[in-house]
Amino acid sequence: MTINKTDLQQLDQRYRATLINSLVGFKTAVLVGSSNGTNGNLAIFNSLTHIGANPAIWGLVFRPATVERHTLNNILQNQAYTINFINAAHYQNAHQTSAKYNGEQSEFSAVGFTELYNNNSTAPFVEEAAIQIAMQLIETVTLKINGTILLLGSLEHIHIKENIVAADGFVALEKANILACTGLDAYYNTTFINRLTYAKPEAWPQAI
Amino acid sequence: MTINKTDLQQLDQRYRATLINSLVGFKTAVLVGSSNGTNGNLAIFNSLTHIGANPAIWGLVFRPATVERHTLNNILQNQAYTINFINAAHYQNAHQTSAKYNGEQSEFSAVGFTELYNNNSTAPFVEEAAIQIAMQLIETVTLKINGTILLLGSLEHIHIKENIVAADGFVALEKANILACTGLDAYYNTTFINRLTYAKPEAWPQAI
Repeated sequence: MTINKTDLQQLDQRYRATLINSLVGFKTAVLVGSSNGTNGNLAIFNSLTHIGANPAIWGLVFRPATVERHTLNNILQNQAYTINFINAAHYQNAHQTSAKYNGEQSEFSAVGFTELYNNNSTAPFVEEAAIQIAMQLIETVTLKINGTILLLGSLEHIHIKENIVAADGFVALEKANILACTGLDAYYNTTFINRLTYAKPEAWPQAI
Repeated sequence: MTINKTDLQQLDQRYRATLINSLVGFKTAVLVGSSNGTNGNLAIFNSLTHIGANPAIWGLVFRPATVERHTLNNILQNQAYTINFINAAHYQNAHQTSAKYNGEQSEFSAVGFTELYNNNSTAPFVEEAAIQIAMQLIETVTLKINGTILLLGSLEHIHIKENIVAADGFVALEKANILACTGLDAYYNTTFINRLTYAKPEAWPQAI
């Protein structure tokens, strides 16, 4: 099956969005915690992206004027947010955070997670999360092409179970059964195949 | 285990890079095909990101001055590139594209993939790939914080097996056993859990 640019433009809008969103493939399904100063907010994202390790910076993509607007407004106002990685068993709870609750209602209690404030964070963590990361907003980049916002934040504080971090720093997410996803509604478990040695032209990579 | 910002700064450079790169989690392991006009180039990326569906735009992240420099130079020169999704059985071949072959040597033949030119593309596809996408460079965004380059491209042509595309446009990547990865060296299979209905405050999501 072949779909060219003209075909893409002529597709039904929902079909096209589902196609292009799911085709880009696997992501970690993360829950972003934020606060407007009064109420905590929780929203699922599939766009967490590595930007740099020193300083440690990750990006999140926000479409213009979407349901995640509460989260974006909170982060722009408060500068602090949290990223929470959850067990795949909680995939329905995670998905339910994308429902359009009104600004007064906490997504935490509505979907069955516990709101947790610690380490002086002004943004809430998900208590049930296997990995909790406090983030600080650094830079907001608006992409000219379609108004999409790339939000860059630094990792301020990582709370993680020691038994999933290898001696060289590698995080074995599968040991905590961390939820993966594609598109806006599909959820996945993962199975570890192997880590491979640093690739060199003269030899074939080996399992670490 | 708790790692704060000061701890992060004091970690060994390789440990920190491995930690932050792997912690960000699951991605599709994609092979990017490009050409300098004479030779084809193939490189593995773990940073493919959805930017928009209309027009259909994806991003790729390039660290400043890395081994993927051949790919970046080719794309900046030629504007055209390809994104290829491969079967998890080919994970070693895919990883081996990250070896520092010299500019004269084709990664395609060196790692055991077949270079394919079709649909008038000036960039090569991977013949063995289950999904082949021709991309056109649209915009290059350099992030102030660390010089990282976000390369935005439009989807010009998608070649995909019809039996993995659902009636609503959803692409079931697991049906083609598409390779997932974390960090720079860890590879994963995936197992589909469920798709869930559009989330609404008054009801719990159901499997589609």
